[in-house]
Amino acid sequence: MRDLDALDRADPLRGFRERFTVPKDIVYLDGNSLGGLPRATAARVADVVEREWGEGLIRSWNQAAWIDLPRRVGDKIARLIGARAGEVIVADSTSVNLFKALSGALGLRRDRRVILTEEDNFPTDLYIAEGVAALLGAELRRVAVDAIEDAMDDRVAVVSLTHVSYRTGRMHDLMRITKRAQAAGALMLWDLAHSAGAMPVDLDGCGADLAVGCGYKYLNGGPGAPAFLFVAERHQAAFRSPLSGWMGHAEPFAFAPGYRAAEGIARALVGTPPILSLAALEVGVDLALEADLGDVRAKSEALGETFITLVEGDCAGLGLRLASPRDPKQRGSQVCFAHDEGYAIMQALIARGVIGDFRAPDILRFGFAPLYVRFADVGHAVRHLREVLQHREWDRPEFKRRATVT
Amino acid sequence: MRDLDALDRADPLRGFRERFTVPKDIVYLDGNSLGGLPRATAARVADVVEREWGEGLIRSWNQAAWIDLPRRVGDKIARLIGARAGEVIVADSTSVNLFKALSGALGLRRDRRVILTEEDNFPTDLYIAEGVAALLGAELRRVAVDAIEDAMDDRVAVVSLTHVSYRTGRMHDLMRITKRAQAAGALMLWDLAHSAGAMPVDLDGCGADLAVGCGYKYLNGGPGAPAFLFVAERHQAAFRSPLSGWMGHAEPFAFAPGYRAAEGIARALVGTPPILSLAALEVGVDLALEADLGDVRAKSEALGETFITLVEGDCAGLGLRLASPRDPKQRGSQVCFAHDEGYAIMQALIARGVIGDFRAPDILRFGFAPLYVRFADVGHAVRHLREVLQHREWDRPEFKRRATVT
Repeated sequence: MRDLDALDRADPLRGFRERFTVPKDIVYLDGNSLGGLPRATAARVADVVEREWGEGLIRSWNQAAWIDLPRRVGDKIARLIGARAGEVIVADSTSVNLFKALSGALGLRRDRRVILTEEDNFPTDLYIAEGVAALLGAELRRVAVDAIEDAMDDRVAVVSLTHVSYRTGRMHDLMRITKRAQAAGALMLWDLAHSAGAMPVDLDGCGADLAVGCGYKYLNGGPGAPAFLFVAERHQAAFRSPLSGWMGHAEPFAFAPGYRAAEGIARALVGTPPILSLAALEVGVDLALEADLGDVRAKSEALGETFITLVEGDCAGLGLRLASPRDPKQRGSQVCFAHDEGYAIMQALIARGVIGDFRAPDILRFGFAPLYVRFADVGHAVRHLREVLQHREWDRPEFKRRATVT
Repeated sequence: MRDLDALDRADPLRGFRERFTVPKDIVYLDGNSLGGLPRATAARVADVVEREWGEGLIRSWNQAAWIDLPRRVGDKIARLIGARAGEVIVADSTSVNLFKALSGALGLRRDRRVILTEEDNFPTDLYIAEGVAALLGAELRRVAVDAIEDAMDDRVAVVSLTHVSYRTGRMHDLMRITKRAQAAGALMLWDLAHSAGAMPVDLDGCGADLAVGCGYKYLNGGPGAPAFLFVAERHQAAFRSPLSGWMGHAEPFAFAPGYRAAEGIARALVGTPPILSLAALEVGVDLALEADLGDVRAKSEALGETFITLVEGDCAGLGLRLASPRDPKQRGSQVCFAHDEGYAIMQALIARGVIGDFRAPDILRFGFAPLYVRFADVGHAVRHLREVLQHREWDRPEFKRRATVT
């Protein structure tokens, strides 16, 4: 168990780490918040800036195929989440895509007015649902995670859940909940923020209706990378986004006075796409496509298991409580421990070069991005965690001052 | 008149051209569609990618102040458009910001249900208004440009106009129309896509209520750069965006279950901002801030006058009809000519390295970005235009094939 280097040597994904620029002195366990920088990204972004923009100028919309990027990168992400080409588009932020998906869902189920979600869903999922409900005269029903299935009555238009919980890493059964929601006559909307790129996801195999996801976590697209939206092919003809911008028009460059939605997933586009950020995202997605997602998931589970075993052994009696499911099959690619001094402990760890993050009120969150996190990193992280706790190193004013972003 | 080089030598803005990387063999008259690349942008973007993201990783949200970028760049743009710090935020696309502004306006004027706009407004302005009207049970009233003021009756909640027409360059009187709209009890929403950075704009001086604008035209922010939204300070407390995402929350990192709008302009934020694109935009905005906008406007008028005079002299009898106002005071920073073969003529010009663009059905559009366009460029452009027309060089199949993006 402790021969972590041997695990790294046997890792089928070991070649991927050198494809990232993770700093040498850092153990980076926060790829679930911002993924690492692929080595190829800097050159690609520089080429977009200097050649495509600087030399090509406006011509690059055609000649460098900028106009195709939302669809092209969407088709690539589709392969990571079990969707078909033409079912995924890259655009806007996750929040804006949630708005489109929830509004669109209420349009597809006009006889029902309830959005059902989990009370511990990621805040922006809750906030956007609150906004959509107020805007469209719908009801937002927020229930405890264990009450979701019982709350699927005949008033529910759409069930909106995040596949992997941002706080605990607890993972929903995509297939079972999708089938249950649909059996109750509702549409199923998944937020794949913490799963796309971290494990195999089979949206079409599960028959999911709608999904959104994030470009800057396990897809390594860079800070604030554009997000994605999935609309199952069978819904696209009837799907309407209230954000009826010109890029979602059937003929944007006809400059017609009236809106006519494009065929297919392109109708979910709104404004001009941010090309620099999109180009960076494509590099991350291309890299993710090189890995076998089965290998990624297997390593993710093994990293999490190793971490839990080591923490529970080496940090026993130091106040940490496992806040993630113990069963790896019920857990995403992160492991969380609760501690009353969680915030200060995480700052002390970061000062030592072990970067995870903190989620209020008391969660220490450690993410394992299998493409660049090694088993040896897990060992280093636990050693530092033990030292921080044993010596109460966290008990300093500078570690208790809250930063803007946690 | 013809001593264009002398005009360039006397140009107070002549030092700005070398701050851009305009290719030597190109006459670029399409900065109104995609602005040029500032020389400083490549290094700044590379630093964001390699150091801030690659080395700083998640820490850069605080340490590199990524979290402040939407507000910081917004405050800088405020200085270009006559707004105060705290009235402008950079976020999303122009289309998405129009959605926020129009929805917000209807929320501020609940007793009125009409959105009034011009039938020749930019298509996405029309499309988004159409979407908002359908969503909120409002009426979209589209009238001819000369009928706008007469259509301001007591049912109009918001008048939504683009300051400078994308097709003709015709410019509205910001002050007069704002006052007229407000006298009629409506809010005034300006789209500054073709004016921000190209001329002095005084939103607060005019008492404008709302505005949006584009980062990738005269602000030189790069392809698909994030857009901006202005909400006059007096409206901010009551302004509500239906896109209630986490970045607009009063305490995003408290991860509270219910939405509570941030104080001030930050409530118009939605999702995580695209940092690479935002950083590039900041470079363009910083450069624009170095120029005197009075000088910019004076040169813009002079470039347009020179162009019209030369075209009407050298291309007389070759089928071009001026499609922009002749009075420079009624014109933005572009000059348009109509020709039945406009599309093919523009392609022939582009093949010669003179880049403008085409707007259906028959408009040749030439934009004059005063920071990098020279009087000599205007002379070259007209010479090429005359040759293309005289020799019917446009009359070739390759110039008539329509590209995806025009």
